[in-house]
Amino acid sequence: MNPERSSVGPDQIIGILGGGQLGRMLALAGARLGLRCQVYAPEPESPAFDVVRRITEADYSDEVALARFAEDVDIVTYEFENVPDNAARFLSSRLTVRPGARALTVSQDRVVEKTFARDCGLDVPDFEPVDDEADLERALARLGRPAVLKTRRFGYDGKGQAVIRMGDDPAAAYAAIGRQPAILEAFVPFEREISVLTVRGADGEVRHYDPVENVHRGGILRTSIVPAQIPAATTIAAVRMGRVLAEALDYVGVLAVELFVTADGRLLVNEMAPRVHNSGHWTEAACHCSQFENHMRAVAGLPLGSTERHADAVMQNLIGADVEAWRAIAAEDGAVLHLYGKRDQRDGRKMGHVTRLKTLSRG
Amino acid sequence: MNPERSSVGPDQIIGILGGGQLGRMLALAGARLGLRCQVYAPEPESPAFDVVRRITEADYSDEVALARFAEDVDIVTYEFENVPDNAARFLSSRLTVRPGARALTVSQDRVVEKTFARDCGLDVPDFEPVDDEADLERALARLGRPAVLKTRRFGYDGKGQAVIRMGDDPAAAYAAIGRQPAILEAFVPFEREISVLTVRGADGEVRHYDPVENVHRGGILRTSIVPAQIPAATTIAAVRMGRVLAEALDYVGVLAVELFVTADGRLLVNEMAPRVHNSGHWTEAACHCSQFENHMRAVAGLPLGSTERHADAVMQNLIGADVEAWRAIAAEDGAVLHLYGKRDQRDGRKMGHVTRLKTLSRG
Repeated sequence: MNPERSSVGPDQIIGILGGGQLGRMLALAGARLGLRCQVYAPEPESPAFDVVRRITEADYSDEVALARFAEDVDIVTYEFENVPDNAARFLSSRLTVRPGARALTVSQDRVVEKTFARDCGLDVPDFEPVDDEADLERALARLGRPAVLKTRRFGYDGKGQAVIRMGDDPAAAYAAIGRQPAILEAFVPFEREISVLTVRGADGEVRHYDPVENVHRGGILRTSIVPAQIPAATTIAAVRMGRVLAEALDYVGVLAVELFVTADGRLLVNEMAPRVHNSGHWTEAACHCSQFENHMRAVAGLPLGSTERHADAVMQNLIGADVEAWRAIAAEDGAVLHLYGKRDQRDGRKMGHVTRLKTLSRG
Repeated sequence: MNPERSSVGPDQIIGILGGGQLGRMLALAGARLGLRCQVYAPEPESPAFDVVRRITEADYSDEVALARFAEDVDIVTYEFENVPDNAARFLSSRLTVRPGARALTVSQDRVVEKTFARDCGLDVPDFEPVDDEADLERALARLGRPAVLKTRRFGYDGKGQAVIRMGDDPAAAYAAIGRQPAILEAFVPFEREISVLTVRGADGEVRHYDPVENVHRGGILRTSIVPAQIPAATTIAAVRMGRVLAEALDYVGVLAVELFVTADGRLLVNEMAPRVHNSGHWTEAACHCSQFENHMRAVAGLPLGSTERHADAVMQNLIGADVEAWRAIAAEDGAVLHLYGKRDQRDGRKMGHVTRLKTLSRG
């Protein structure tokens, strides 16, 4: 714990594991609250490094760097759920890590995650763990085709997934995901995908943002639309599911839950992310208090901020070459542009996002 | 000019002179646009240092540091108008400084400033330059009492000012402001003080935020209220005055103009600030694009952002001990809190602000 403290205001120094755009936006939101942030990331060109004074450029396995980091900061949070076990354990033994180790354990493994959600009484797509090809054959026989084969760990943006349809060779699908420990999920003929962002304070207070509808392309989130076009009862059910999971995890911070909505109105938990989430980027443009600020408030033990929405919004990710339109987007009325300051544009790389606002109509 | 450039997005590195809360908020707004910022300030505890990776901690008279700064960055802007002449001249000879040197020259000296505004055809309080006690006697004889004696340079937050009323000793007032080159201004029995924030792009486009009404206490801005309670014609006149001054200065960036509104509806220019301004802090909470972002857009040569307002707002400065209420304010619904991360609380020191929003009523 750092002895150098401010005499007023929130006096924590927040350590952020991960230096991507989420870490960057967390640090920016923290700064508005007067919090100092220190970013820990292995990549020298980490976007979050540009917006903090103190950085730790080191590998997550570097225990000397982790120990120094633990001395520099008061509380640790993270921008991604794939924090290596050793780093999370090492830091948790020395200081508070929020959201806690439980949230990491649950969300790092798709089998543990779905089992956890099911144990909370929530619907999930039917699934089977797959540890070898024999498991896969058995699982396919029970769940039928199409089905989705996913690595249990380290999947993101559609990576580590393969759909097995009629006529497909299961062994080829298993090879395609690297023959890793996997999960086979029954294919859900969903009508839409939504997500709900729940924030839970250190004191247990729970708030939520309005559920958003998400459109993916090539496994990557392209667009989030708020409000989602779902009946009020579905909204209420989705919000309740977020709360149930956050409370069961004794969670502190923003929790993202992705849900499938079926034609008959059922909600199934697709996945959880124990962090701020791409589908909540619109909140910085359309809410009094963004997901980033509310996460930092929760982590720092402050009261939660208002999640109220003052506009309808459509958030569009700027992926790869999309970002080349930045100047035209900057000139658009009602468009709130956010660029991540990444030096290299690559296919599939998230370079920024834009939230287009439509003022709420009032009676 | 720094050779290390991003391949997409705005590719400038913006140098910011001054490390206070305004520089900090400029850097935070720049980061959202993907701009990298480097802050130059002499004080090691500068609040803006905490939110950028690259800093220059050096005196404004240090030409070695200034030369290195000029090589590190592409464009220079500033958070305060009292940039020492030598630094502004030195940097202007090497790279683009926005808003330009003209804006600094005009706003650094109250006699030059008022003369300039008058030459633009705008009303100003009647005034006389004062260089000695004989000048002061003559000026008092012409302008009458009460009158306000101010230093020509380096005044802020009511410092360097003295009101001379009936019975007061002019020599004592002159001594109180340090017997510096001064200006005597006729006292304006104003009904309210407003300010108008104008932003002018590098391409000459001009936009403005809605005029705000300002309440000072002890010479320090306490509260800004938007919309100002003034007739539509007064709003139009105020906005026009901001535009006239910005265009006459060939200005790039946010220009703040403080105006007196008299009981008979006349508008007189009180002072100008060639920078983002305390009376525009509400824009970060109530507008799509804040004064900070629009200043950075203008400085970086980007299109201007929307200055539209989605809520009525009251901004309150948290000065000195005010900030001790930060936790209660953080818990208020509709209150957007911004703390500057300053370590030491002192009387009269601006520690943060809060903008309380009231959603616009619509027909």
